[in-house]
Amino acid sequence: MRQIAIVGLGQIGGSLGMALRAHGKRVVGIDRSPEVLETARSRGALDHASLDLAQVSGCEVVVLAVPLDQVVAVAQQVAPLLSADALLTDVTSVKGPIVRALDALRAPVRFVGGHPMFGTEKQGIGQADASLVAGAPFVLTPSGATDPAATDELEGLVREIGMRPLRLSPEEHDHQVAQVSHLPFLVAAALARVTSDTRCAGPTFRDMTRVAASPPQMWRDVLALNRHEVRQAARSLIEELQQLLELEGDALEEALGEACAARERWRRLGGTKL
Amino acid sequence: MRQIAIVGLGQIGGSLGMALRAHGKRVVGIDRSPEVLETARSRGALDHASLDLAQVSGCEVVVLAVPLDQVVAVAQQVAPLLSADALLTDVTSVKGPIVRALDALRAPVRFVGGHPMFGTEKQGIGQADASLVAGAPFVLTPSGATDPAATDELEGLVREIGMRPLRLSPEEHDHQVAQVSHLPFLVAAALARVTSDTRCAGPTFRDMTRVAASPPQMWRDVLALNRHEVRQAARSLIEELQQLLELEGDALEEALGEACAARERWRRLGGTKL
Repeated sequence: MRQIAIVGLGQIGGSLGMALRAHGKRVVGIDRSPEVLETARSRGALDHASLDLAQVSGCEVVVLAVPLDQVVAVAQQVAPLLSADALLTDVTSVKGPIVRALDALRAPVRFVGGHPMFGTEKQGIGQADASLVAGAPFVLTPSGATDPAATDELEGLVREIGMRPLRLSPEEHDHQVAQVSHLPFLVAAALARVTSDTRCAGPTFRDMTRVAASPPQMWRDVLALNRHEVRQAARSLIEELQQLLELEGDALEEALGEACAARERWRRLGGTKL
Repeated sequence: MRQIAIVGLGQIGGSLGMALRAHGKRVVGIDRSPEVLETARSRGALDHASLDLAQVSGCEVVVLAVPLDQVVAVAQQVAPLLSADALLTDVTSVKGPIVRALDALRAPVRFVGGHPMFGTEKQGIGQADASLVAGAPFVLTPSGATDPAATDELEGLVREIGMRPLRLSPEEHDHQVAQVSHLPFLVAAALARVTSDTRCAGPTFRDMTRVAASPPQMWRDVLALNRHEVRQAARSLIEELQQLLELEGDALEEALGEACAARERWRRLGGTKL
């Protein structure tokens, strides 16, 4: 795979473009904003910039990196333009409903759902950075309709640019990402909202509320689409917190030690830029 | 103030030693471990190392940077050794019961409770760093028994080393720190404990569980001493989270926007190494 189109050059699309170029790929960047394309070019996120979706037609891989509320509509426009063997993927953080919609595209499309797990609380091409990509997990979410060869191809590309591929069904992805991302975001927002006075807040507050500064509109859409899993994860967390609040002495120390160990196990998996 | 004793050279004591020396103070470092003292010397956290508490006697300021469960016992040993005008402070993260105990020391001691809000999830002199100190809040917690001139002196010193002084009563400190530090720690521990599979966890999980890797024994003691405030803060957070889970569409986006704005207000206060 040599020529890759990225549709939507925000922080995720732009960072992927930089990482792909650093690994010898030619990147066709497509966006509806000329200013975004110009910034993407000057920041090294693309080789060829275009306002025209039809530019996907010569590309072997097409990455849809548009916001969640636009991805199905853009996929419908892109599908008829794809080369016969082209691989289509996306970057949305909820997979069940998106994969179902993209599996149903009329054209014969080789689609594999994707979710690169990197990014900061900020957005836009100005926040893109290839260093966010290296070592981060990339969840591939093949469904019953997915061509297994396409999954293998995407996994190879993901590994080539230094990410850690992981295969989960769309449903399992949504279950797990609710626990590690969607609920933690909502907890961060709740913490930021209930803190009456932040003058004495230090590094714990800084890290526990960082993601609360993320774009509200994006999160509104994510939470709407994964509401059931987020609610279930919230019930577990609240129950766990209430149990911890009842513990004292050695029992509390032991439970906190288990939390420590769980965090350490994650870090040993490779973590994310620790 | 020229000569300052630091009793206990862990991450906090060591970092304060480095910052004080960088601002022209002479630091007498006292610890019961010769290895810790040797590391503190080699890392530039002290000018004179001693195993002997009696070395506090020539110092104008004495900082007790020992763990929470030792601070009252060490203060009782230190008090009779202090010079008449010496200022005594501490770094514990719960203030009500500690300030009451230290206000009751028999010797005529000029004690001002202190809580420097910096540090990582790691501990020990090997983790000390002057860069943690700069810009961090330092809460001074004068009580009815505190000499106002001593509070002013400590505030001047705190400002001199680049920290942001903030005065709160011991009770108000414990109320606010439960919100910005103690409860967030417990939430991080709960998140780390309930996450069944962390293979797909990215930067949100990284930051939301960082403090869960902190020493369990230290936190056991902190939570025991501030239990009432932490429980109250937990009730508010759980209620807020449950309300956010019920919101949809514009109402949810608005609430998330308020969380964003609250986080931004904190950042503008000076934040902590953002």
